[in-house]
Amino acid sequence: MLKLYYAPGTCALASHIALAEADAPYTTERLDFKSNQQNSPAYLAINPKGRVPALVTDRGILTETPAMLAFIAQSFPKAGLAPLDDAFAFAQVQSINSYLCSTVHVAHAHKGRGHRWADDENSFTDMKRKVPQTMAACFALIERNMIKGPWVMGEAYTVCDPYLYTIATWLEGDGVDLSALPKVADHRKRMAERPAVRKVLAEEGLNG
Amino acid sequence: MLKLYYAPGTCALASHIALAEADAPYTTERLDFKSNQQNSPAYLAINPKGRVPALVTDRGILTETPAMLAFIAQSFPKAGLAPLDDAFAFAQVQSINSYLCSTVHVAHAHKGRGHRWADDENSFTDMKRKVPQTMAACFALIERNMIKGPWVMGEAYTVCDPYLYTIATWLEGDGVDLSALPKVADHRKRMAERPAVRKVLAEEGLNG
Repeated sequence: MLKLYYAPGTCALASHIALAEADAPYTTERLDFKSNQQNSPAYLAINPKGRVPALVTDRGILTETPAMLAFIAQSFPKAGLAPLDDAFAFAQVQSINSYLCSTVHVAHAHKGRGHRWADDENSFTDMKRKVPQTMAACFALIERNMIKGPWVMGEAYTVCDPYLYTIATWLEGDGVDLSALPKVADHRKRMAERPAVRKVLAEEGLNG
Repeated sequence: MLKLYYAPGTCALASHIALAEADAPYTTERLDFKSNQQNSPAYLAINPKGRVPALVTDRGILTETPAMLAFIAQSFPKAGLAPLDDAFAFAQVQSINSYLCSTVHVAHAHKGRGHRWADDENSFTDMKRKVPQTMAACFALIERNMIKGPWVMGEAYTVCDPYLYTIATWLEGDGVDLSALPKVADHRKRMAERPAVRKVLAEEGLNG
């Protein structure tokens, strides 16, 4: 049995959806970010980074969304969530997930987490002001080069899809005009209709 | 035949070393960052992100270091650069590479690439000032939790090792005191002695 630590509205949603899509046996534990539970001694013993997601397995604890998504795909091969027998196609999946993690999520994080990289209030304001621009640039690249359609990798639904969906749900909050991103908008709509996504959104208390 | 686009002093070094360790057939092409060659039309046709590394394969072009490292390990299994038959151990490798990419490299990038996330000179100065602190915090976590020794994953040398080494070579420049990081320092020394690393450093015109 797997156990996913998550908080609503975070990138943990991607792994949560992947677990549901894989029909994996799993439970969840919700962290309360308002009371800073992610930095409590109990949680730091699980993930010393003080972040979500974290996935408890019978072999140990995994962190980092791209690693967890590949792990879920490899552990439940029947679900077909990644091209496991094709190193190049698998690398394409991983390349997109790495970009979402290290560039797109990081761009978004400058809206509310500026204290990670600076100290002055003016810097936080400056960073926050630029987020609509950086997120729009990231998603223009995604729209142009990273969605084959109907899913990210084409006809096959992969672990790229819940990850892209998760970050795309942040776009309005980040001040990005979705009307300039028809493929992204279509992908988000298509995702929200999937039974696994509806189930997970309900579990997390979110609206699709 | 693979072709790696790189620039000296960048994270492309990790993939370059991995190719050499795998004894892969490869050539390299060096980009001149001083003349902004990474944003030339010719290179943007290869990697629209305007970044290195990029790996040209007979199937297409790959970007993003963690994806390329896993691809190299999977494409040259005899080199034993990742635990390919153990999804959990493979996920541990990927988790470390994802952390290096999305947290550690990003912390470092705030020294000289503040314009990616802000517009004001004062913000750049503020970000730059914090880099010794953020990089020290990242490497304190690495020292404590992510180096089993002698290599990152223990007795087995994996694609985590060239990636950690690459980023660790930036520490002095980032104002981090290496004497507080004995495992990292030992790892860096051990890496610099490997024939593949020496060969690649010479190819890139760097000193070990």
